Amino acid sequence: MADNIKNKKEKDVISWFNEVLLKAKVVDFSSIKGFSVYMPYGYRMWEMSQEYLDRKFKELGVENAYFPSLIPEHLLAKEEKHIEHFSVEAAWVTMGGDKKLDERLAIRPTSETIIYDSLSNWIKSYRDLPMMLNQWVNVVRWETKETRFFLRGREFLWQEGHCAFRTDKEADENALQMIKVYKEYMEEIMAMPSFIGLKSEREKFAGADKTYTMEVFLPGNYASQVATSHDLGTNFSKPFEIKFLNEKNEWEYVYQTSWGISTRAIGVMVLEFGDDKGLVLPPRVAPIQVVIIPILGSKSDEKIFSESKKIEKELLKLGVRAKLDGDKDSSPGWKFNEYELKGVPMRLEVGEKELQNGELTYKVRFDGEKGTIKLDKLASISEKLNLIQSKMLNEQRKKIMSNIKTTDNKDEFVAGLKERKYIFKAPWCGSEKCEDKIEEETSASSRFIPLDKDELISDRCIYCGEKAKFNAYFAQSF
Amino acid sequence: MADNIKNKKEKDVISWFNEVLLKAKVVDFSSIKGFSVYMPYGYRMWEMSQEYLDRKFKELGVENAYFPSLIPEHLLAKEEKHIEHFSVEAAWVTMGGDKKLDERLAIRPTSETIIYDSLSNWIKSYRDLPMMLNQWVNVVRWETKETRFFLRGREFLWQEGHCAFRTDKEADENALQMIKVYKEYMEEIMAMPSFIGLKSEREKFAGADKTYTMEVFLPGNYASQVATSHDLGTNFSKPFEIKFLNEKNEWEYVYQTSWGISTRAIGVMVLEFGDDKGLVLPPRVAPIQVVIIPILGSKSDEKIFSESKKIEKELLKLGVRAKLDGDKDSSPGWKFNEYELKGVPMRLEVGEKELQNGELTYKVRFDGEKGTIKLDKLASISEKLNLIQSKMLNEQRKKIMSNIKTTDNKDEFVAGLKERKYIFKAPWCGSEKCEDKIEEETSASSRFIPLDKDELISDRCIYCGEKAKFNAYFAQSF
Repeated sequence: MADNIKNKKEKDVISWFNEVLLKAKVVDFSSIKGFSVYMPYGYRMWEMSQEYLDRKFKELGVENAYFPSLIPEHLLAKEEKHIEHFSVEAAWVTMGGDKKLDERLAIRPTSETIIYDSLSNWIKSYRDLPMMLNQWVNVVRWETKETRFFLRGREFLWQEGHCAFRTDKEADENALQMIKVYKEYMEEIMAMPSFIGLKSEREKFAGADKTYTMEVFLPGNYASQVATSHDLGTNFSKPFEIKFLNEKNEWEYVYQTSWGISTRAIGVMVLEFGDDKGLVLPPRVAPIQVVIIPILGSKSDEKIFSESKKIEKELLKLGVRAKLDGDKDSSPGWKFNEYELKGVPMRLEVGEKELQNGELTYKVRFDGEKGTIKLDKLASISEKLNLIQSKMLNEQRKKIMSNIKTTDNKDEFVAGLKERKYIFKAPWCGSEKCEDKIEEETSASSRFIPLDKDELISDRCIYCGEKAKFNAYFAQSF
Repeated sequence: MADNIKNKKEKDVISWFNEVLLKAKVVDFSSIKGFSVYMPYGYRMWEMSQEYLDRKFKELGVENAYFPSLIPEHLLAKEEKHIEHFSVEAAWVTMGGDKKLDERLAIRPTSETIIYDSLSNWIKSYRDLPMMLNQWVNVVRWETKETRFFLRGREFLWQEGHCAFRTDKEADENALQMIKVYKEYMEEIMAMPSFIGLKSEREKFAGADKTYTMEVFLPGNYASQVATSHDLGTNFSKPFEIKFLNEKNEWEYVYQTSWGISTRAIGVMVLEFGDDKGLVLPPRVAPIQVVIIPILGSKSDEKIFSESKKIEKELLKLGVRAKLDGDKDSSPGWKFNEYELKGVPMRLEVGEKELQNGELTYKVRFDGEKGTIKLDKLASISEKLNLIQSKMLNEQRKKIMSNIKTTDNKDEFVAGLKERKYIFKAPWCGSEKCEDKIEEETSASSRFIPLDKDELISDRCIYCGEKAKFNAYFAQSF
């Protein structure tokens, strides 16, 4: 028997999450507290995310580069709010070989400061703009809260885009455009319905004018911020002296953006779709999309095996990530369990009966659908995978929409948030003080303010009763 | 006028090297001593190297993963020679946020120890073998010597492969196979003739049984080690307890390899091919392969411009990395200089004359060849680029071979090495002591021992006169 998952998702989601990730060999603990290892099966999902996003970025004119992983303390300190936020969670290098360093160096928690130090040398004229850069790197943040695979670690993998523009308008448009790219990625690749909007004053990035966020809602009505895109205005270009000569030969500060998405995207996908048998992967992010399992043990073994080989070859040729598991030491039943644990979207069985009928038995991981596919119609498997992908997205969207409740009733709002009965959309004043109090009472915070200004649900703030400025979404953070 | 290169390669190669790299926007200095920035034009060359190598690795069954960037001191210390070598050049993290850490953490100088710590958990049975992993990461080594762009820095980008096998034979075969992959990459992509062989006892990796090296020879008869591949035997599997149950149900230690290539590959390519006008890039690593320059200023401007656009589009469709520079504020002459500085392999001129004759004027960066290409024969440009690529490799190979001298004459050997008159192939005893003395007297060291055991040039060591064990190549390191 393959290793079964002992924890139940419903009962103890975190233990279930860890058990699934470890048994499916997605990640592993390391010998350093808070640092995890991305095993090949998990890293492959990140590579596929990179392929998609990197292509999108390049289509938009973004170029990749690489900046030092260490940031001298005086640079990190150039923007006031930035250092305040990041100095307490930086990992500090104080020795180089056996010599004490004159100045501490922080391992990048994010690279605004070290990148903008270079931009101040590179940008001279309006002709140098826009400048659109990105890097795919690891970052280190010394979390003091309990760490979780993918969701919160002392080291994670991400990309960080950094752009400079001539006008505030262009910068804001870019920040918005990038958050839309993230939403597309999340929906197209991860089959995760996602929401974009603005962060509140309290929740925005240290040093940003505006922070756009891409959020997903998780089982138990939790929320998770998966990507952010910041309109930095001139908050960094002023202290870093990033100026350009405009067409009238006057010096102006550039307007900047930064935007990033991390491996957290994989974690929330696992949380959303996984079940008590293990992972359930959307086809577009699945390292193995179709597993072929020969049902051996009869006198047709040789034929079954060679036919399975042929099917694998044909699927690979069609661009399907297919894998034949022909291991004779494990039973078909063991393999069924194993690939369900690994979340492989579709399995094909090849046995005596199948060869006689000229059709394969298949089973879909996501909804358990079973059926047969004619051997001469293997090409239909690509379509089938696309169908599974869109079905996953659509069903998830329905589920999530039914968990969102619009309200102007404070009692319902407070009690519902506490118990995570719903995600709430409610009229809000937007103040930091009000948000602090909401969190104190309910453990929830504002997640985002929708971009389409819809009509106010009420003209009074759901919580403090002051004038409402906009509707906002509220939920507990995972 | 585009910025001309002021330093002459012949006269002051290092100043020339820095000037070319900075003016062509390949790399830049950063605010941290010894750390450089890979600008988009330089980073693109690394991305193209990655694409080639990553595909090769995957074809051989290697899977990518990611391990923590920080290594606890006690892990780094598990292999004796390894810690001895690396502890003096590690960057040490001693603070996490505002707390002093209980144990120092080294930023990975190389990841054997942190990876093998995981392998000891992952490998249980012969069925888990071979295990072939790779990661694409940054590493930090606190160089005390003067740093150089690409060639020696406190941080560089590389990949490190780590494999575990059941037998010593498999491990050695893998180590050899990977050094051959590097040689192929270097010759096919970088057009750099390269040599593989074994490192001497003194020069091999700290913790290896054997180190295979891939070396190139540079102008001035310098040598540079670009990639290495180590047969680690059981030197790490013993202290790290990486054991497997064999088919007879007995515990055995695994045999391991590690292998890596870094961004240094780009640096040596620039050194080898660059000239007093700037970079000279082989087509397969050139971010821009063909630049199209419209010769404007006549009444046909509009037609010239639209034709140039068409040519760019057609070349892109053919898979050629083409770029039209239609900027009206710079003269054709300025552009000629600029793209020569950037090493673009081929330039196409589109002017009135060209449109009348239905053919474009081209110039090849590498050898200055000029000619014309019929507008309806644009597809021939792909072949032309292939031709340039192989011509670069072949001419370079001839040049280098003529600089290698076989000798058994000690006086010629010593004087020639000192003055870098030749690279020498000579009979050698292989001892550490002898190599120390050679270096003391000539500043040169052994570069590699060829894999094909050819006949000994003499049965006496060229330097100490003891019994010669093999022929070896000697040169000064760049």
